[in-house]
Amino acid sequence: MSEISDAIRDGAEGFFRTQYGTISKMACILAFVILGIYLFRTTTPQQEASGLGRATSAYITVASFLLGALCSGIAGFVGMWVSVRANVRVSSAARRSAREALQIAVRAGGFSAIVVVCMAVFGVAILYSTFYVWLGVDSPGSMKVTDLPLLLVGYGFGASFVALFAQLGGGIYTKAADVGADLVGKVEQGIPEDDPRNPAVIADLVGDNVGDCAARGADLFESIAAEIISAMILGGTMAQRCKIEDPSGFILFPLVVHSFDLVVSSVGILSIRGTRDPGLISPIEDPMSIMQKGYSITIMLAVLTFGVSTRWLLYTEQAPSAWLNFALCGLVGIITAYAFVWISKYYTDYKHEPVRLLALSSSTGHGTNIIAGVSLGMESTALPVLVISVAIISAYWLGQTSGLVDESGNPTGGLFGTAVATMGMLSTAGYVLTMDMFGPIADNAGGIVEMSQQPESVREITDVLDAVGNTTKATTKGFAIGSAALASFLLFSAYMDEVASFAQIPFKEVDIAVPEIFVGGLLGSMLIFLFSAWACSAVGKTAQEVVNEVRRQFIERPGIMDYKEKPDYGRCVAIVASASLREMIRPGALAIISPMAVGVIFRILGHSTGQPLLGAKVVASLLMFATVAGILMALFLNTAGGAWDNAKKYIETGALGGKGSESHKAAVTGDTVGDPFKDTAGPSLHVLIKMLATITLVMAPIFL
Amino acid sequence: MSEISDAIRDGAEGFFRTQYGTISKMACILAFVILGIYLFRTTTPQQEASGLGRATSAYITVASFLLGALCSGIAGFVGMWVSVRANVRVSSAARRSAREALQIAVRAGGFSAIVVVCMAVFGVAILYSTFYVWLGVDSPGSMKVTDLPLLLVGYGFGASFVALFAQLGGGIYTKAADVGADLVGKVEQGIPEDDPRNPAVIADLVGDNVGDCAARGADLFESIAAEIISAMILGGTMAQRCKIEDPSGFILFPLVVHSFDLVVSSVGILSIRGTRDPGLISPIEDPMSIMQKGYSITIMLAVLTFGVSTRWLLYTEQAPSAWLNFALCGLVGIITAYAFVWISKYYTDYKHEPVRLLALSSSTGHGTNIIAGVSLGMESTALPVLVISVAIISAYWLGQTSGLVDESGNPTGGLFGTAVATMGMLSTAGYVLTMDMFGPIADNAGGIVEMSQQPESVREITDVLDAVGNTTKATTKGFAIGSAALASFLLFSAYMDEVASFAQIPFKEVDIAVPEIFVGGLLGSMLIFLFSAWACSAVGKTAQEVVNEVRRQFIERPGIMDYKEKPDYGRCVAIVASASLREMIRPGALAIISPMAVGVIFRILGHSTGQPLLGAKVVASLLMFATVAGILMALFLNTAGGAWDNAKKYIETGALGGKGSESHKAAVTGDTVGDPFKDTAGPSLHVLIKMLATITLVMAPIFL
Repeated sequence: MSEISDAIRDGAEGFFRTQYGTISKMACILAFVILGIYLFRTTTPQQEASGLGRATSAYITVASFLLGALCSGIAGFVGMWVSVRANVRVSSAARRSAREALQIAVRAGGFSAIVVVCMAVFGVAILYSTFYVWLGVDSPGSMKVTDLPLLLVGYGFGASFVALFAQLGGGIYTKAADVGADLVGKVEQGIPEDDPRNPAVIADLVGDNVGDCAARGADLFESIAAEIISAMILGGTMAQRCKIEDPSGFILFPLVVHSFDLVVSSVGILSIRGTRDPGLISPIEDPMSIMQKGYSITIMLAVLTFGVSTRWLLYTEQAPSAWLNFALCGLVGIITAYAFVWISKYYTDYKHEPVRLLALSSSTGHGTNIIAGVSLGMESTALPVLVISVAIISAYWLGQTSGLVDESGNPTGGLFGTAVATMGMLSTAGYVLTMDMFGPIADNAGGIVEMSQQPESVREITDVLDAVGNTTKATTKGFAIGSAALASFLLFSAYMDEVASFAQIPFKEVDIAVPEIFVGGLLGSMLIFLFSAWACSAVGKTAQEVVNEVRRQFIERPGIMDYKEKPDYGRCVAIVASASLREMIRPGALAIISPMAVGVIFRILGHSTGQPLLGAKVVASLLMFATVAGILMALFLNTAGGAWDNAKKYIETGALGGKGSESHKAAVTGDTVGDPFKDTAGPSLHVLIKMLATITLVMAPIFL
Repeated sequence: MSEISDAIRDGAEGFFRTQYGTISKMACILAFVILGIYLFRTTTPQQEASGLGRATSAYITVASFLLGALCSGIAGFVGMWVSVRANVRVSSAARRSAREALQIAVRAGGFSAIVVVCMAVFGVAILYSTFYVWLGVDSPGSMKVTDLPLLLVGYGFGASFVALFAQLGGGIYTKAADVGADLVGKVEQGIPEDDPRNPAVIADLVGDNVGDCAARGADLFESIAAEIISAMILGGTMAQRCKIEDPSGFILFPLVVHSFDLVVSSVGILSIRGTRDPGLISPIEDPMSIMQKGYSITIMLAVLTFGVSTRWLLYTEQAPSAWLNFALCGLVGIITAYAFVWISKYYTDYKHEPVRLLALSSSTGHGTNIIAGVSLGMESTALPVLVISVAIISAYWLGQTSGLVDESGNPTGGLFGTAVATMGMLSTAGYVLTMDMFGPIADNAGGIVEMSQQPESVREITDVLDAVGNTTKATTKGFAIGSAALASFLLFSAYMDEVASFAQIPFKEVDIAVPEIFVGGLLGSMLIFLFSAWACSAVGKTAQEVVNEVRRQFIERPGIMDYKEKPDYGRCVAIVASASLREMIRPGALAIISPMAVGVIFRILGHSTGQPLLGAKVVASLLMFATVAGILMALFLNTAGGAWDNAKKYIETGALGGKGSESHKAAVTGDTVGDPFKDTAGPSLHVLIKMLATITLVMAPIFL
């Protein structure tokens, strides 16, 4: 066991080093670009008033960008570090008791999750207080506290920049190895998954760690950081407009909510305890229900603490009942999170109708299975969109009616209401991230058990955990995309404020009836399609290389199949690692360059036709359309992938002919197609839409 | 041969009757709804000024709706009528000479195409002149000629309403039969396509006629009608704003362009002549290049006649060089059409890189084939979007700089410039539709040849024609989606004008920074995903029924395989017919009801929160986002489907192992998946986005 585990650890750490080496080089280049832009841009009246020079503001932005990138990298590293160490412990525990294995996997995931949330909260808090003290905020002649959060956007951009490449590289790695291993091993040679005879098996297990653990850690770190910063900006802007005496409550609110998140999620995680019962988990208590019990505890506590935080920080004399409205916004967010988790579960768990129908469609062939899966994925976008629509409108409305008004008596709390709902949604992020991290650890443990040829009963335990992990992974993706949608919407309004303050022209609307702005939307939506295409085809191409290598090894070393020769695991690891580093560049570069290019082109076009804000407006439209298309595409890809995976698992339980039948073969095809959908393109899109929102915010000066 | 052809004709005409029976019932219900809405709505100041009463306007709208629906039905009927008669003639001619077969197929397609374009042009012309005389337009105290085109929108809505259901029903029919027949026949039993032993083969051949010919006839009829009407509206509005003395040139321009289209397309069609050479087409002259030569002739003539028409009708004393700018807009449109055709060809023809790579990915399995196809489809959206973006912006800019200005000196020609570009794009519609109709006729002829067991040499000729038909079908879809995108954009601005005149509030912008309007966009994009899901799953479900029926027949009548027993073709025809009628209702109803429901809900919400135009604005945003998402999704579905089809055909030429190899099996899976993409969901989306544009225009009163 430890031999295998060491091989996995070496592979994962090796890839991590090379990958983050490449990413940090790119980050440095980008840092110089940002520095250049900020040194040559014009300063805003606020900055002049606060005595914040051009150079200072440039260094601040670059420093927070680099810090964000670093923290995001550490978040990924922690996820991977824990997971490559926990996997062997879980497989060892599975030899004793299922409950103990579950507990170890959950606690390991929980540890990473808590570290990630901590870093997001403390990273922002430290930056905030450093700037506060250093710039002498709120003392006469210097910056106002309400303008401070805008200095933090660089942090969010750095975080999303690293998360994007981490997710792309890791996602390509894990799925290329997985698809390649399955296509030759399972389909052509008929050997089981994770069989030690398969030359690509170590690469596959390494992939679980670098793709799922490291990347998702960076992803959720980035979500929380972006959401905290955008909520702080909105809180600050609103407090300023409403002339609230002490605005710090509104600005610090997100930090407090996430500090409570650390507590309530820890309670939820610790509620999953090991008992002394030996052997299998008793049939009345399956791991999924244990996990859900923990989630219910976390949610209930989150509702309580959220209420307390709103009363404490958002109470103001001007509108005595505003805090209650905001507490309700938080409740809207928590309900939205719950609904997202439930909907993803409905569409991807084989206990429910959709996956059963998908499995049934496998009985008429590969073709009908794919058609049914694609339809299922597209259909599954409907309910989440309805939920998020209701959430946005009701939170906005609760905010507007909170009683907070600006100088001329207009209600102004709407956007802050949406921000509070987003915080509500993310107020259980720690626990959700735990459920997410749990999956790959269990998957890895199963691989180690299979490879070290443990008895069947041990494998059964890890199989149960793995299946639960699949469902929790699918549901947390729903959660991630929901929060990305809300966070993007918030960053969008921060962007409009930022542009208006740079350009000193009011920037109030993005009118899609203007042809150029409509074209911006068209380009934004296209960006999503092209990005997804390149992410999927990267997996396809790399998987083909793996297939050819594995086929070659089977031919050149015929002894492998009789356990007489050892396959060359290292070559597969090397192929996948170098291919995924190469392939992550193209979609990543597309995501970073295209909004900048569109902004600059339309800026020039606008200047020559007398429309001063054209560049900024076209970018805004690109951003909004990309967000909408990205949400839908990510929902489609994640759900279709999860459903295909579980339809295959459902058939493997013995339904419709069971393992080895024609239906099973068709279902395996579906699973293979779903792999890059749900673990490469889908999660990369979560990060992409937030990265687009932060890049436009940081790069705003060049669009004007 | 004639026995088989009769069976196809009976099946097609029987389905056509039932389908159009259902559609006409729905049209009548909708007519009553429209009547109700228009009888209770408020009248606009223009209407009051022209003495046009509420009742008259209601009857006019309903009458044009019904006329549009009727004409659209006739367009479909003509397409099918010609095709079920031409197929047997083409197969008979193929026994003599390839060139003769090609000529007959092209002329038959050309006949339908010309009839369809004629109906669109004369339908609008007759309505226009009837209203002109009846309402005493331009005489004192009555309507102005510039307001007249708005009365025609009912015609466009009727046309798109019927086209939507025709495309959905026909598309489900043809692909369910095709997929069902292939899955059992080709994959399980290993018999060739269109083999007489396959019980679903007649249903498959019937499907070509009702799905491809009838539906595409209705689709392009609708495109042309919608485009003529929206261009007339824009021309009228602009002429009025610029106070042009005789606006009729601007209003009648689209009719003239399409009259010329009839002439130039006929010349192009007639340029494809039969020679006396017997036997195969000589190798230096393949059918594709003959078709393209005809297209080049048509395009060159179109450029000429377009220039003449602009000088003749768009010359005005106020801006002497405006006609030249508009002629350039037309050229932009023609180039766009050509670029679209070229791009679709690049991505779907196996002479080029993308399809070759797709075929190569089949060699590593079903899974990699599907991943590569999906990536190819998504990637193929990029170039068309860039082309359409450049077209919209440059045509708008040419229009703005044409010198036409309104009273206060602002340039106003921009939107009309886009309209002229759309007309340029559609100025070769007759020839493009011919290329489209040619495909299914050739396909059918091949089927008849195979079923009547003609010698191999005859089958070879029809195979060549069939392959060319596949490429032309794919390229005309690019054309259809490009023109739909432009037409929708025009109808959108007509909608804004219409709402403003009803509400008597200026309706100038659709600001997506407003949460409700953003939500409208989210819902609009979701509508596209849900509609595509339902269209695809309808095919999947019906195909499963066919598979089960065909399997049953093979088991119950074992003599079928030795030609001893005749399969029961009728049962398959009946199953597919009833299932496709049932399945077309759900996506169709979604498309019609959802914009109305969203409009009414947000109208109520807007009234209660003091935003008077909220309903109309949210619908506008829904429409724009749905258009953008629809264009991308349709491009993705059409191209992926076409590429899969041709990757399979490429392997069948002997590449990568040829027929029967593992690569071929994987390629067949891809082809099966592509069927509902390219022939059901994709083309339905073309119609859907235009239907959404016309329904919002007609239903505008209920959003206020």
